[in-house]
Amino acid sequence: MARKNAFYAQSGGVTAVINASACGVIETARAHKGEIGKVYAGRNGIIGALTEDLIDTGRESATAIAALRSTPSGAFGSCRFKLKSLDANRREYERLIAVFKAHNIGYFFYNGGGDSADTCFKVSQLSESMGYPLQAIHVPKTIDNDLPITDCCPGFGSVAKYVAVSTLEASFDVRSMAKTSTKVFVVEVMGRHAGWIAAAGGLASDHGIPVVILFPEIVFNEAKFLKRVDTLVKAHGFCTVVVSEGCHNADGSFLAEQGARDAFGHAQLGGAAPVVANMVKQALGHKFHWAVADYLQRSARHIASATDVKQAYELGRKAVELALAGHNAVMPTVERISDVPYKYRIGMAPLAKVANVEKFMPRDFITRDGFGITDKCRRYLTPLIQGEDYPKYKNGLPVYVTLKNVAVAKKLAAFELK
Amino acid sequence: MARKNAFYAQSGGVTAVINASACGVIETARAHKGEIGKVYAGRNGIIGALTEDLIDTGRESATAIAALRSTPSGAFGSCRFKLKSLDANRREYERLIAVFKAHNIGYFFYNGGGDSADTCFKVSQLSESMGYPLQAIHVPKTIDNDLPITDCCPGFGSVAKYVAVSTLEASFDVRSMAKTSTKVFVVEVMGRHAGWIAAAGGLASDHGIPVVILFPEIVFNEAKFLKRVDTLVKAHGFCTVVVSEGCHNADGSFLAEQGARDAFGHAQLGGAAPVVANMVKQALGHKFHWAVADYLQRSARHIASATDVKQAYELGRKAVELALAGHNAVMPTVERISDVPYKYRIGMAPLAKVANVEKFMPRDFITRDGFGITDKCRRYLTPLIQGEDYPKYKNGLPVYVTLKNVAVAKKLAAFELK
Repeated sequence: MARKNAFYAQSGGVTAVINASACGVIETARAHKGEIGKVYAGRNGIIGALTEDLIDTGRESATAIAALRSTPSGAFGSCRFKLKSLDANRREYERLIAVFKAHNIGYFFYNGGGDSADTCFKVSQLSESMGYPLQAIHVPKTIDNDLPITDCCPGFGSVAKYVAVSTLEASFDVRSMAKTSTKVFVVEVMGRHAGWIAAAGGLASDHGIPVVILFPEIVFNEAKFLKRVDTLVKAHGFCTVVVSEGCHNADGSFLAEQGARDAFGHAQLGGAAPVVANMVKQALGHKFHWAVADYLQRSARHIASATDVKQAYELGRKAVELALAGHNAVMPTVERISDVPYKYRIGMAPLAKVANVEKFMPRDFITRDGFGITDKCRRYLTPLIQGEDYPKYKNGLPVYVTLKNVAVAKKLAAFELK
Repeated sequence: MARKNAFYAQSGGVTAVINASACGVIETARAHKGEIGKVYAGRNGIIGALTEDLIDTGRESATAIAALRSTPSGAFGSCRFKLKSLDANRREYERLIAVFKAHNIGYFFYNGGGDSADTCFKVSQLSESMGYPLQAIHVPKTIDNDLPITDCCPGFGSVAKYVAVSTLEASFDVRSMAKTSTKVFVVEVMGRHAGWIAAAGGLASDHGIPVVILFPEIVFNEAKFLKRVDTLVKAHGFCTVVVSEGCHNADGSFLAEQGARDAFGHAQLGGAAPVVANMVKQALGHKFHWAVADYLQRSARHIASATDVKQAYELGRKAVELALAGHNAVMPTVERISDVPYKYRIGMAPLAKVANVEKFMPRDFITRDGFGITDKCRRYLTPLIQGEDYPKYKNGLPVYVTLKNVAVAKKLAAFELK
């Protein structure tokens, strides 16, 4: 087998551990220099491939690559750029193949969520039909935890840990203040369609905290919600509300809708917390506080789940191993063997079954009243937030690496993004 | 000297380390059983004293008290309840003395900010004139860091660390996304009058992050602010804005009061971040994300500063030692000896000089343009966020203690709070 180069790119919203997957890919490729030559990374994700803006990761020291394991965000830059369908924009797919061909790239590692799994699959299909076979492996990543087949998605465990810890801590705060001041604390978390992240707030309820969760999977019912808050405040003197940014009314409108839309045409959300908090104030008169965690939650490497970091790395490593074993159009997955003690193995799923499938919270993970999580959900979530994987600190701040990101010389004519 | 009991109460907004001070007070009192009998805590702060709702901390195990050191929030409950002036409400002060007398309390340890220092001072004065001498010692606590004389205030170092770490992490996130998506990230932090907390966000700028800080000490100037953001985004491709909740216009109105309304047309309270973010969007067109840290920042014991935890404990311990040495109407303080290496000693200040004095950011801690921190400010802040003091974890969550909080039998008639 002639030695080929590899291409790696980060896609979509970044996470606290996507660089751990990058670390797994690059370190494993470096350990197989006989089969894999250079590892090129796309500067700002797939845009880097389209514009032939490749980064030579070979210019980074082993120390710098190892430091990716404990550095949040996307070290090579990510992008929100969804390739259109093959019919609508064959030009972009052909360009990708041309760039891969020009740089002797035989392995395509795409690190992202559902949209990028779809892109990865299409690139694999097209490369074959164009006579330039490419091994396309998708490395799962999404804090939304909504990819199918895999037990969980790297990035989620760390957000879940952040949300569970923060909900617990802020709830202790409200409990202290409730006698004369704040009685209801509302924290807004991410999760546009699936309530996995919001569910993690429910883990605080194991510690005596009354928590109301507003899931995107459950249509918002103001009267029922206010009644639940009222009951809990009467019983405990306070309560905490964890509201998903994707919480919506019966007509589908988000509680938080701002009007702005992102590059994929999704509504840009943020602001459900003040809406909910004011609702409580108006109806029940309780003093409130609210927080919107936004990027803080998905970048919080300082409180990352050790389990999540480990899996992110292992899935990156496995992606390379799958490629070396000749696989194509697949994604390494986490296969859970047991909850307690937590055991799992790394498996594999065909991209044909991954692309364009979203995994929501099963109804039996949510309590009957729609405001809490069940024991089944707890058994699922608890292993994913296990362990702390602290970064090193210097002068009171974490030591996160910024790579040199040296560009590879271009070989092709410029390409205009449309 | 006849053995007297002690009374300890937590006042105002709680912090990640106020319980570490409680731990210092109680453990030190326990080590001096010859001089100090029981340590009673006020349930929900000073209200517990007024209503004779005392907690017998002697009912808590040594292990539980030790665990306070790593538990955020106020373990006995706090309150927002400011005693009026002596003239306006002598009745309350007299009630305090009556409760102290009934329970043979000779030591009053009040753990709070500026308002409670004032209360502590008045109680001390009145007790003498009423012929029931009481040793009143104030234990400093405020995330706002605005008490005079002391170099810093317990609670602040941990919030500063949280804000510095979170700003760094979220900025790495924005930097990853900026090519095609979010270019400006806005995080709102606490500090209604003083910009100490916002200043901590500036520590991220040591790591290559372009940060714009909006201080309460600097009148907001929209045109200058937008120009600064524009310059930074053009130079770096992105920027992060740290806005203090106390940021205000020339007419004194808070930014948070002026803009966003929720779906029901209610003004959003405490939302300077969305106001600023929308301003940037309107003027410069950049995609934004915003976060409001709110309680998450002051309860974040998981990322507490080891220096802060240590000082909080030491100030609690010193309060008891000062009382045993016969002092009255004083507050233990942190006296900085050197920045690098950081050295300090615990000193003492008379409450007469502490009460009703607020310490703002010196102008030379803020850059000339008003949007950043100077090296002098860095030298001040850096030691305060040094070191990590991680709590223990179980099942992925921190182990925080909830005390039994057993009530002491009442001896007096009920007292109605007005």
